[in-house]
This record gives sequence, C-alpha cells and structure tokens, in this order.
Amino acid sequence: MLQKPLSVTFEDRPTPSLDSPYDVLLQVNYTGICGSDIHYWQHGRIGHFVVKDPMVLGHESAGTVVQVGDKVRSLKEGDKVAMEPGVPCRRCVRCKEGKYNLCADMAFAATPPYDGTLAKYYTLPEDFCYKLPAGVSLEEGALMEPLAVAVHITKQSGVKHGDSIVVFGAGPVGLLCCAVAKALGASKIVSVDIQENRLEFAKKYAATATFVPAKVAAKENADRLVRENDLGLGADVAIDASGAEPSVQTAIHVLRMGGSYVQGGMGRDEITFPIMAACTKELTVKGSFRYGSGDYQTAVDMVASGKVDVKSLITRKVSFEDAEQAFEDVKAGKGIKVLIEGPK
Amino acid sequence: MLQKPLSVTFEDRPTPSLDSPYDVLLQVNYTGICGSDIHYWQHGRIGHFVVKDPMVLGHESAGTVVQVGDKVRSLKEGDKVAMEPGVPCRRCVRCKEGKYNLCADMAFAATPPYDGTLAKYYTLPEDFCYKLPAGVSLEEGALMEPLAVAVHITKQSGVKHGDSIVVFGAGPVGLLCCAVAKALGASKIVSVDIQENRLEFAKKYAATATFVPAKVAAKENADRLVRENDLGLGADVAIDASGAEPSVQTAIHVLRMGGSYVQGGMGRDEITFPIMAACTKELTVKGSFRYGSGDYQTAVDMVASGKVDVKSLITRKVSFEDAEQAFEDVKAGKGIKVLIEGPK
Amino acid sequence: MLQKPLSVTFEDRPTPSLDSPYDVLLQVNYTGICGSDIHYWQHGRIGHFVVKDPMVLGHESAGTVVQVGDKVRSLKEGDKVAMEPGVPCRRCVRCKEGKYNLCADMAFAATPPYDGTLAKYYTLPEDFCYKLPAGVSLEEGALMEPLAVAVHITKQSGVKHGDSIVVFGAGPVGLLCCAVAKALGASKIVSVDIQENRLEFAKKYAATATFVPAKVAAKENADRLVRENDLGLGADVAIDASGAEPSVQTAIHVLRMGGSYVQGGMGRDEITFPIMAACTKELTVKGSFRYGSGDYQTAVDMVASGKVDVKSLITRKVSFEDAEQAFEDVKAGKGIKVLIEGPK
Amino acid sequence: MLQKPLSVTFEDRPTPSLDSPYDVLLQVNYTGICGSDIHYWQHGRIGHFVVKDPMVLGHESAGTVVQVGDKVRSLKEGDKVAMEPGVPCRRCVRCKEGKYNLCADMAFAATPPYDGTLAKYYTLPEDFCYKLPAGVSLEEGALMEPLAVAVHITKQSGVKHGDSIVVFGAGPVGLLCCAVAKALGASKIVSVDIQENRLEFAKKYAATATFVPAKVAAKENADRLVRENDLGLGADVAIDASGAEPSVQTAIHVLRMGGSYVQGGMGRDEITFPIMAACTKELTVKGSFRYGSGDYQTAVDMVASGKVDVKSLITRKVSFEDAEQAFEDVKAGKGIKVLIEGPK
Repeated sequence: MLQKPLSVTFEDRPTPSLDSPYDVLLQVNYTGICGSDIHYWQHGRIGHFVVKDPMVLGHESAGTVVQVGDKVRSLKEGDKVAMEPGVPCRRCVRCKEGKYNLCADMAFAATPPYDGTLAKYYTLPEDFCYKLPAGVSLEEGALMEPLAVAVHITKQSGVKHGDSIVVFGAGPVGLLCCAVAKALGASKIVSVDIQENRLEFAKKYAATATFVPAKVAAKENADRLVRENDLGLGADVAIDASGAEPSVQTAIHVLRMGGSYVQGGMGRDEITFPIMAACTKELTVKGSFRYGSGDYQTAVDMVASGKVDVKSLITRKVSFEDAEQAFEDVKAGKGIKVLIEGPK
Repeated sequence: MLQKPLSVTFEDRPTPSLDSPYDVLLQVNYTGICGSDIHYWQHGRIGHFVVKDPMVLGHESAGTVVQVGDKVRSLKEGDKVAMEPGVPCRRCVRCKEGKYNLCADMAFAATPPYDGTLAKYYTLPEDFCYKLPAGVSLEEGALMEPLAVAVHITKQSGVKHGDSIVVFGAGPVGLLCCAVAKALGASKIVSVDIQENRLEFAKKYAATATFVPAKVAAKENADRLVRENDLGLGADVAIDASGAEPSVQTAIHVLRMGGSYVQGGMGRDEITFPIMAACTKELTVKGSFRYGSGDYQTAVDMVASGKVDVKSLITRKVSFEDAEQAFEDVKAGKGIKVLIEGPK
Repeated sequence: MLQKPLSVTFEDRPTPSLDSPYDVLLQVNYTGICGSDIHYWQHGRIGHFVVKDPMVLGHESAGTVVQVGDKVRSLKEGDKVAMEPGVPCRRCVRCKEGKYNLCADMAFAATPPYDGTLAKYYTLPEDFCYKLPAGVSLEEGALMEPLAVAVHITKQSGVKHGDSIVVFGAGPVGLLCCAVAKALGASKIVSVDIQENRLEFAKKYAATATFVPAKVAAKENADRLVRENDLGLGADVAIDASGAEPSVQTAIHVLRMGGSYVQGGMGRDEITFPIMAACTKELTVKGSFRYGSGDYQTAVDMVASGKVDVKSLITRKVSFEDAEQAFEDVKAGKGIKVLIEGPK
Repeated sequence: MLQKPLSVTFEDRPTPSLDSPYDVLLQVNYTGICGSDIHYWQHGRIGHFVVKDPMVLGHESAGTVVQVGDKVRSLKEGDKVAMEPGVPCRRCVRCKEGKYNLCADMAFAATPPYDGTLAKYYTLPEDFCYKLPAGVSLEEGALMEPLAVAVHITKQSGVKHGDSIVVFGAGPVGLLCCAVAKALGASKIVSVDIQENRLEFAKKYAATATFVPAKVAAKENADRLVRENDLGLGADVAIDASGAEPSVQTAIHVLRMGGSYVQGGMGRDEITFPIMAACTKELTVKGSFRYGSGDYQTAVDMVASGKVDVKSLITRKVSFEDAEQAFEDVKAGKGIKVLIEGPK
C-alpha cells in the first residue's frame, strides 16, 4: 500500500464482499509492475491524479475466482481469469456509444482514489474477468493488461494487412504493439529505440527491422528510416510508445500522405510538433487511452492462438514480500516485465 | 502572370488546345483571390513549392464552356461551371483508393510549375467541371473553391447532426466551415477570432455564438469557452482555420474525451502542441489538404439548395486590369473575398 | 392491460417503487398507439414473442418526473421527459460495443414478459429519460419513439448530404424517415405508397416527390421511378418502411451500383428477393431494429431545432378510458398517429 | 476464341499495340479457367451480358512484360506479373470515390464486348499489373484473380481478428475465402458444402471445422451448425460462395445479432430470403462484385508472405492446344483449378 511518495507498507485488510450479484471475488495470483505504479510510488501523482489517501498499487493482474454473485453465469469458483482493472459507469454517452474507456466516471485500479490489485483479494464484475483458455497460464494472464494497451493502440492506428508500420519505443508496450501489428498482418514492422539491446530483443521478438535514431533533426532521421527500409513515399502507420519528443516528431515525418499516427506513450504535456506536415500530408493522429470494448478479449485470443507471445517478456517473478525491491529494479530499467506473486 | 516576387505582368497568350478528348476549354469569368496567391506574389514560394519560372496565379474560378472534346458527354458549349483546379494522376494507390487530393502527381493550378486560372482560357477534364444549376451565378461559382476547402475540412471533422463545434478563425474558410457545419446540423457553432468585426459578421452569417480569446493560457481560454457556451465536458468537434498557434492549443483543450480536431489553417511549420491532452482524451486529430472526392459537388449542392450562402462573402468585384490593386487590398485585409472579372 | 387477445381491461395497480438509485419514477402523460400494440391486441403474439400472462401495452410515451433516486443528477421532480422504453443489460458484448439495441437481455416495454407504459406510473433509469427542451410539448415527447425508430433506420442507411433517397411506405415511420433524411440534407426524397392520400400528406410534409407503383413487375416500377425522378444510374439510398414484398423488390432495383438499403418495415418472414441484383450491384442491405446509442437524443434535437415536425402527425388525442376505441380506429387505419392521455 | 455457344476456335491475331504511354504489352503465360468462362462457352451469355461477336475467353492470367510505354516507371521487359483483367474509366463518381469495381464503364476481359486474356499477348495499364515478388511463380500469379475475388468478399464481410466465420461452398472461391479469413485472424472458420471430399480438402487447407447440411429446413441446419461449433448466439460473419438458395437461407439464420453476411456466389436471380431475420437481427448484408482498390495487391502480399497457399489449388496444367478438353473437365467438376499454358 502506497502511504505517500516513497513509502509503501504491507497491511492485512478485510476480504472484500460482493457488492453486486454480478460481481466476482478473486484471489490475485500475479501482478505486473507498470511504469505508472513506479510513477505514483516516486511522485505521488500522475498529471491531475493525486494520491491523497493511502492507496493500493497494481493493475496488471490475473487471479482465481473464489466466490461468485447470484447472477454470475459464465464463471465459477476455481476459474482462472485475466482481470480488466477499470470499470466504467455503463450509463454515460461515452459508455453507451461503445467507448467506455472514455467514461468520465471510470473506477480504475490504482488511480486515486481507487485501490489497485496488489492485494490478496479483489472484486470485479463478471464481464471484466476474462477466463484463461486451456494452455494460457496465470503468469501470461497478468500480461494481458499491457497487451490490451497495445491492442488498443494498434486498433486506433487502423493498421491493415500488408501495411508498413514504425513503432517508436521498444519497452513492453512498444514490443507488444509490434507483436499485435504482426498478428494483424503488417508486412514491415520497424522498431525504433536508442538502446541497441532492446532492438536486438525486438528483432527476435516481432519486428522485421530496427532503427537507431542519430542525433540529427527528426526529418533527417525520418528520411533515413524511410530509405533504409524501402518505404517508398513513407510508412502507412506510425505508433509512439516512448513518449519522447523526438520520437513523435520523427514519426510524423516518416509517414506517407494520408498515413496514420497514434500517441501511445506518455511524456511531457507539451512538445514541439510538426503541425504543417500533419496538415498537408492529411494525417490522422489519434490518442490512445487504456483499452476499451473488445480489447482484452482480443488480447486473450491472440495469446491463446499463439499469435502473440507474452511469456518471453517476463523477465522474472518475485514474491509479494520482495515487491519493493522489484519496484526499485523496474525503476532502474532492469528487465522487461517483472511479476509479483501472491500474496498467498 | 507572376514573373518573380512582387512583379506581375499582363500577357497575351495563345488559346490552349484540348489535349484529351475528355477535356473542355473554358473561358474564365471570375476568379477569387486567395491567401496563397498573395503569398506567392509576395514571397515567390510556399513551403517547398518555389516559383522558378513565370507562373499564372489564380485557382478559385468559374467559367463558361467554349469547346468540348469528342468524348465529353455531360457538358456543351455555353454551360457555366465551377472549376476544380487540381487534376490528379488517376493511377496511383491514393487516387484509386478514393483520396485523389493526396496524389503525389497532382497538377494544381498556380502551384509551381502549373499555371493558374487567372487567364482568358483554361482547360480542364470534363469531370473537374461542375455545371452550375439554375439560380447559381458565375460569381457564386468562383466561391465554390473555398467552399470545397471548407466542405473537406468539415467532412474530415466527422461533425454530425446535433454536435457542438468550435471554429477558430473567421476569415473566408472559417466562415464557410461554420456554414457547412450548420448545413450538416451542428447544434452549437462557436466562431473564435481576435477581430470583433469578423465575429459580428460570423454571428449574422452562420455561427450560433462567438468568442474572443483573452491573453491568457490556452487552457484558460478553453475553459472559459466551454463554460460560456454550456458545452459540458467539452466540444464534440474543433476546427482550426486560422493557422495560429494559440488557436490550435485552445482547440485541443476545448474538446471532450473522444472529440475530433481538424487542422485546416496554414501557419508555422512547428508549434508547441498539448500532446498529452490529445493522448489521454483520445482525440482524433486530422489534417485537411485541399478537397477530394465529392467535395466540389457537395459545395455546389449546398449553394444550390440555399443551405450555404456564398454571395454575402463577396466584398467586391474588380476588372482584370485592376487585379494588382485587388491583391494589395486583400493583402491589407480589406473585405472578405474579392473577385477578379474576366479578362474579356 | 391485455388479458388475452382481443381482451383488454383497466386495472388499479400499485405505484412502482424505485429499484435502483439511478431510477426515476414517471407519471405517464401521453402514449402513442403503435402497430405492434394492435398486433399483440389482435393476435397475442409477434413472431416468437408470445403474451402468456396479462401484459400492459404501450411504449410510445412521454411523462413527468415524480420521484428520483439518490444518484440521479440530471433530472428533478416536475421535469418533462420523452421515455425510451427499452433498457439493455449494459454488460454484454453488444452493449459494450455500443449497440445496446442488439442486447439479448433487453427489457422492452410491452414486449412479453415486460409490461408497457400505458399505465399511470412507470420507472426508468435516468439515462433513458430525455428532458424535453423549452418549446417541446409532452404530446411531441410521445412521438419521439417513432421518430427514434426513423432516426435509427435513416442512420443505418448512411444517407449523406446531397444523396437521393426513396422511402417505401408513407405511414408514421416512413413519413418520419423522409423528415429525418431531409434534416440530414438528402437532395431528393421520393415517398412511395399505394394510397394517394398518404402521398399527398408526404409531399406537403417532407418528400420532394411521390410515386404510386403500378401493378407491374418490381423492376418495371423501379425503372419508371428512376426515370421520372431523374435519378441517373439509380438512387443512392432506399428504405422500406412498409414491410411489403413488392416494396422490398422495387427498392433493390431502384438503387445504383454501391447503393444502400435498409429494411425498416415488418412483414412476412420470408419473401422473394432479387439477390443477384444485390450481389452484382454490390449493395449494402441492413436491417434496423428499434433504436440505439444516441438515437433518442437525435430525435429530441431534431424536434427542438425545428428540423422535424412531429406535431402534424398527431391526428387526435383520446382519454385513457377511450383507449380501446382508439385501438379500433388505428386498426382501421384512421389517421396517422393517435395519442392516449393519462390516465390521470 | 468463342465463336458462338459450344464453338471455340484457335486464331492467329496481330500483336496488340500500346495505345497509351502508360500501357504494358504482356505475353500471357498461364490462364485459369473460371466458371464464368464455362458459362459463356455453354450459353453464350451471363445475365444481360450477351456474346454477340466472337470473343476471346479467359481473365485469370499471369504474364511476362515484353514492351512498356514511355511513361511506365515501375515495370520493365522481362518482369513477371499478375494481370488484373478489368480497367475502369477512372473518371466517374464511383472511380473517384475509390470503388472502381462499380464503374459503369469498366472494360473487363472476357465480358462482352471485351476480349479475354486467353491469347498470346495482352495489353494492360501499368497500374493493373502486379509484379510477382521473388518466390512467387507465374502459376501462382494466375491464381491471384480468384484470390482477389476472395479478398474482396472477405473485406466486404468486415471479418476481424478473433471472429467466427461460416463459408458456404468449398469450390475455389469458397476455399480462398477460408484462407483469407484465416490470414486475417478469424478464430473459427466453418466450411459448408454438400460434397464430403471438398470438405476434406477444406479442412486440410484452411477451415477449422466443416459442416454438411442435412435435407431439413435452413433454420434447423443453422441451429445445428451453431450448436456443433459452439458459436454461442451465432456466427459473427457468414459468406456465401455457392450461389445456392439453401446456403443463403442457412447463412442468414446462422448469424448472431448484428452479424455480417456477404453474397459472393452467383446463382438464381431471385430466391426466397428470410428478410425478417435479417431485419430483427439487424444484419449487414452486402454484395461483392469482382475486386477493387487494393485487393489484387493484398492477394499478392498474402501469397508472398506465405499466409495464403494457392499452389495446392492447382489440380493440373494443360497446353493451350488442349484448352477445350480442359473446359470439358472443369464443366464436369474435375479438380479445383486448371491452368492453361501459353500459347507459346
């Protein structure tokens, strides 16, 4: 539990009760550590979300059903599920038009004032639990959250079979965007990062090519990327999963007329942006926020069918008691994804 | 004819011949003066388009058919038409997918090296001539070009019946965006400009409300705009037709979650842009470049049906011989739209 | 209350209580009579929906708020609202993708086993009540239901500004489809019916032209319709609001290559259908079922803005006590829309 | 050359000249035999297309570039290409909106009055030739035509990653629809046919399951298909590639609320169609006609990337001189796809 910045504690808390007949009580088995957890831990806030009261961290979890409400039909005790950690109001215009990730009344795990999933038990509505098919482990289940992020970003991009795509950033989400683009049939997938070792992983993992930007103007990097990868008049799609200003700029310049760009990475509030290139090339630039209708299910399907491999992103697993050390390691950039077990 | 920056001349030139059996020879009756004409006249270039050889200016024209090619079926001598001034290659991927405005081989009037329409005669393929219905004058026909620009911007925005929209800039294109949004059923149309007299016109013309930004942060102006116009969680759609950096910034902040923004105005290549607001609100940001499939026809339909009034934007008409003075006046910001007659 | 086919009774029933803090208790002021009410009254069933227990009829209602739940924010006692009479589960895949009208667990008024709105009181969730703006009467409020049906059909058709559209059937829904198409900017709106007096009304109401089919093959009627209305290669859009087999056939033949058709009317389960014409013209044929996300709000907006007139469709109002006589009249085809007042 | 029904001849004809600087002269290497060729050969007409003058058959071809026009940039002598056999006008509304397959002035090979590709030489515009990548043979190139048909049908269906799809008919196009659906990530692909041996091939080829309809009502077959394949409330997508009335009926009943259907197969002009099921389930029913923007390129990409195997559909190759015998064999239903070589 995050008491205040830099101060986490372990607490015994009462087992939550089922508020609704549609709810399910879950024992949490694995929870991945995300950059946002690290950020709350370090700074106590992300943008206008401020941790005022002590808050449980964690939102990348898989668990086991221990109790179901009276009206639950699709789940039973013992089922293993991936846990979608944000529950919308279901009543506003955004929810009813099929964009529940844009709901203004979303209750999202580990976003103040809502507790996260790094706890023994957690309750969720049945329809935000995704039963893991045979052959998909609980560890993989915990990875469905970043994969759903990547699925949403990639769907936002509109990438189609045969398209070329450039993905900036080779952290967990960038890598998963490459994998999703591959599953959707992208023909060329260029992974861009400043760390060579990440690109080596990306190449083996899902990218068809890699690119290390030089310390030159964004346009110059973009031109070289297009040339080296034989992208003709430019890439069809570009995704930023880095949040870095030069990545965004390069991405805009790398696109062809009518290309599509998605901002997936979080970074500075304002950046210098090549707006006239976006205008005269008639680009479509979209933000991507969390995940929405169908994204978690797509994530589960892609792993179950073997199209996306999430296992190889799991660097190591630590016990609940070692969680704080794991936070330190993630902050230091060690490994790709660390899972916290239990607590038991 | 633009010889070099600041130097225009009048020349007698041979009547063009019909290169293709699908072409039409037109006598040009009226040509509007556009900001881009002024820009070429003053600076000899726009971005990477540089006037190297003498070039005829003008691209907002209506004319009368004087000769038709053998295979022309829909037009005959004497027909009065609005002239769409850019002809694409019809063969590239962009053309064949229905986005000919993104054609890399577009031949566009008064964009180097292609001559413009400020001439006695001009040839166009039949399918880029739009017959003016009964009741639509040649003067109105010349206004179809900026109206098509506004139609394209507004279509790019996806504005739907009942939506709220904020349009930045109350010059010809901004005003026409307001009018098109009204024709498409927008419920609230807020026109934003720093010149009060323009807003007075906008209010009478097509806007339902107006807004003068204060010299404060963009977010602050946006919040006030939302509050004053009772826009709830924000506007559904925002369009920039000004090219000004503060307009772009305010527009992004004025939008609701999932809102839509279109960059229509031309300005500085790079600006400071609130990228995180665009990301976390999951906005759709689009550029808009010229006009494409169906836009000119929509423009003609909107004027013919009386839904859009272009007449009241015509400040005055000048003779061909007085064209240079008209350029000076437009440069000085006198009036909304000036038409050049003839030459006869 | 419908006891069994042909047998309706009046009953005193307890005032319903608010089951959810998001619910609103309404006094029902006006209820329109719909063909489906007549059908249940006459036959006790529609398709696989069978009236087994006594059921209250009615689903086209407007009412006044008499009590609100604890969490209701947008409504207060005394507010006048249009009542959307079907509440979906909000939890299934269809609901969460923004198509709640396709929810398999929809509770829809006057569809067995759910009671209808022809009662003194009715409860609805806040978000299925649409506050009537100043200037919109409760009588008009009751017409929002058929208007929402027409809005949904017309949206399904994808009709755009400038399109030509042919609407088969000039009953309430067909007429309202014409009105919605007009509000969305359709250029030609041809109303088709076999009753001349209905077409006279349609012409005054919203159609730009009318057509009476002859007793000839569908293709022949279609060809004449296209010719008489100068539709070139065919209409852009066709809607059936009649349910009649010859209408469907004629509609398919009346369309241009790539045109769009919507089945709005209910009729025989199976008909003879020109499938090869639909295939080789690459038509888009859609069903339309009730109304979904945004449709009721669009209906209210269109009436409030004056774009759609529903008042002139109200033939007369009868007291609750005279409801049965009104059912007889509607069955006999007298008038366009009859409203039942109260009960008080 | 088809002289009249049942009468084909071999003729020496002059090598065609290049009419346009954008054209390419091709030596035809392989041509597949299509059902439509058989139909013209047997009956001399398909629908309103009637063979009046002698006509060369064939439209599924691959060839080698022997001469290029002055403005051709992407091809040179010796290049091996798949030949898209229909060239649109490029000027009409349909062409310019990106739907050139709906062009009313299409010149399509072996559709009267246009000669087909079963000749030594054939000319095409550069942009209707698709260079075969390394590793793709000319034999495979000839299969791009039916694959493009399947790509277009499948795109029309909107099938998405994870969807369930039922394909009626296991002939060449039905099989290729299964393969394309698999390449696009469909999770369940049920192939339906009345011939068990075709289904055996389908199962090995691309289907995940097969179904043989019983001689019962369409609804009954549909219910069993859904049950046996665990499709819940119904399939997401259904495609008919058989043209058979019972297939169409079963397909409509097999779909879930909001599902999508495409008519790909050609059969009787009119059939008995369950229109109310299509209406109340709010299905999207689309025709599919030939192929359009991007389809041929997608076909080439799918074969080049190994996602679609067309080789195993080639039953045998015959010499040009044996073409007539091959027509007899195809008519008798022997094999899946027969290619005609040359002539040399």
